[in-house]
Amino acid sequence: MVVTNVLHMNTGVGETSYASNSTHQRKVLLKARPVLEDALKELYTDHRLSAQCLQIADLGCSSGPNTFLFMSEIIDTLHGLSKQSNCKAPELQIYLNDLPGNDFNSNFKAMPTFYNNLKEEETEDGSGRVCFVAGVPGSFYDRLFPSNSLHFAHSSYCLHWLSQVPENLENKGNICITTTSPPKVYEAYMKQFQKDFSKFLSLRYQEMVPGGRMVLTFVCRSMEDPTSKDWTIWELLAKAFLDLVSEGLIKGEDVDSFNMPYYTPYKDELKTIIEMEGSFHVESLEVFEHNWDHNDEDNVHRSADNISSLFRAVCEPLLASHFGDLFDVFEKFSKNVSDHMCQEKLMVNGIIVSLSMK
Amino acid sequence: MVVTNVLHMNTGVGETSYASNSTHQRKVLLKARPVLEDALKELYTDHRLSAQCLQIADLGCSSGPNTFLFMSEIIDTLHGLSKQSNCKAPELQIYLNDLPGNDFNSNFKAMPTFYNNLKEEETEDGSGRVCFVAGVPGSFYDRLFPSNSLHFAHSSYCLHWLSQVPENLENKGNICITTTSPPKVYEAYMKQFQKDFSKFLSLRYQEMVPGGRMVLTFVCRSMEDPTSKDWTIWELLAKAFLDLVSEGLIKGEDVDSFNMPYYTPYKDELKTIIEMEGSFHVESLEVFEHNWDHNDEDNVHRSADNISSLFRAVCEPLLASHFGDLFDVFEKFSKNVSDHMCQEKLMVNGIIVSLSMK
Repeated sequence: MVVTNVLHMNTGVGETSYASNSTHQRKVLLKARPVLEDALKELYTDHRLSAQCLQIADLGCSSGPNTFLFMSEIIDTLHGLSKQSNCKAPELQIYLNDLPGNDFNSNFKAMPTFYNNLKEEETEDGSGRVCFVAGVPGSFYDRLFPSNSLHFAHSSYCLHWLSQVPENLENKGNICITTTSPPKVYEAYMKQFQKDFSKFLSLRYQEMVPGGRMVLTFVCRSMEDPTSKDWTIWELLAKAFLDLVSEGLIKGEDVDSFNMPYYTPYKDELKTIIEMEGSFHVESLEVFEHNWDHNDEDNVHRSADNISSLFRAVCEPLLASHFGDLFDVFEKFSKNVSDHMCQEKLMVNGIIVSLSMK
Repeated sequence: MVVTNVLHMNTGVGETSYASNSTHQRKVLLKARPVLEDALKELYTDHRLSAQCLQIADLGCSSGPNTFLFMSEIIDTLHGLSKQSNCKAPELQIYLNDLPGNDFNSNFKAMPTFYNNLKEEETEDGSGRVCFVAGVPGSFYDRLFPSNSLHFAHSSYCLHWLSQVPENLENKGNICITTTSPPKVYEAYMKQFQKDFSKFLSLRYQEMVPGGRMVLTFVCRSMEDPTSKDWTIWELLAKAFLDLVSEGLIKGEDVDSFNMPYYTPYKDELKTIIEMEGSFHVESLEVFEHNWDHNDEDNVHRSADNISSLFRAVCEPLLASHFGDLFDVFEKFSKNVSDHMCQEKLMVNGIIVSLSMK
């Protein structure tokens, strides 16, 4: 499986699309807002960065309302800072990056409306548009931008995706790390994450200007223990696939040979990687817990459906690239989630890291 | 009709797609190659432009093989120049621009293959990718790029498209200028082109760096006379719509109220606009004639089918946005073209203009 070719959120704006099922991610984006604003403020007041145009990247932008929420947030914050300091707002070039299978067309079709709404924000001298948006297809585990060009990079809820599934995994009956996975499975995943995240940092270091800043938000583990209950959600999805196997709809070997390109580090693990790689200072690091269900519903069935819809919007193309027909796996998954939630809620931890270039 | 929202080539890679029916435009691109190479050479040797990264825009890139042909041409030429001068090749950032309805997803999905093919071109020190591609949705009659950022702009076979249909046209039974259109129709079209092309130049002037260059290729008229036979092709398409009217399939008023946002200037008319606008020097200007049929077939039916397929790939979304169902209009058009070609071939004139910033 070449992750770059098959990983993307569900396209379009339909019932199962990412655009219609990304309230969870919206909440994460709003959670990170104060950190984002602080980083932009420091960027704005850094006199090394008196550029006529600030170059900003959203790495893993996906499509739909969250993509536009991020851009509005950036523009509003920087315009607010300009007003406060009585300066003309800088021009902004915002790069929306995601893998080549992402639905850029949906974002691009919404751009005329976005630009029209921005008109009020145009410079008073009538010199026109102050924000220029471009789409950049490619993996953030590769170079994406010219050297020494980027002022600010942002990534929300993407860096838990690995560049590839670790090689030679023996993880039968599972589709990710589980509490019962052999230690070698955890170690292989951890090493892949270390390699990927280090590469991510060193690539961005090449692309950024001195004084450049990054704010990264992604899923993390709540505890150091690698076999923690943070993996429960994937066990419940694996169980749904195993049910399909027992019904003779898919083959057991298809489950055995599939593993998610997904890993969530513990905060100390992340700090160590950043220090070892050496390109960036950690300005702040914050862990938060929230419900996988964005609505935090009391009704376990509705709650389970919300979670299943979220996972479907995010994972369906990836899973379909391996299994082909997915039958009613997301209904089964919802049932498993619902059963589990009779005992306890399904929580998830996120980490917000603010970094500055050394 | 808001041209920005409805004008785009047929998407995807199917039988009627632009990607599968753009050999005509490919020939135009190859025709302009020497001019493109000269302009890049002058750009490369201009010492004002010792940028670490050259910023290059393809305005109206569409989708499919021609988009990639242009990029390969740019990269090959600049790498050739670097080799000749024994210098490290500059990084390139290529912006693919088109209207928001363009099929950017198709281009983006082909990027991994394009980048893989480029690997041989990577810098010898292993510093990685030398070309960074971004998509820019928007009309080139608006600002698209930050001020003072672009080194080279290119546009092939797009600038005959106007930003809007001239207002209050009375052009009954026609869908563009024809030999029988009232003078007011021609004047309104001419004025719209003057306005649009002047705006195009002044916007690019804001976006380009001193020493910046442009190469523009588009359809032009073969003679000064505005009612020349250059419009014949549109008369044959209008006739196909009038046939649909006589069959009761569409309403006559739908034809009367539709006009193409399309105008082709005569070379002297173009020179005057460039001089009046005042931002650019004309470095070279070349007119060429070629057949609307890219294969220049002897068999009139095959030739007419080729031309009909070309027009379908280019005009179908625009026409469908006005007429809804197009029935068999392109078959009728092919028949009309074929009948006409029994008397004479259907030729078209193109103009290649190379410009440098004043």
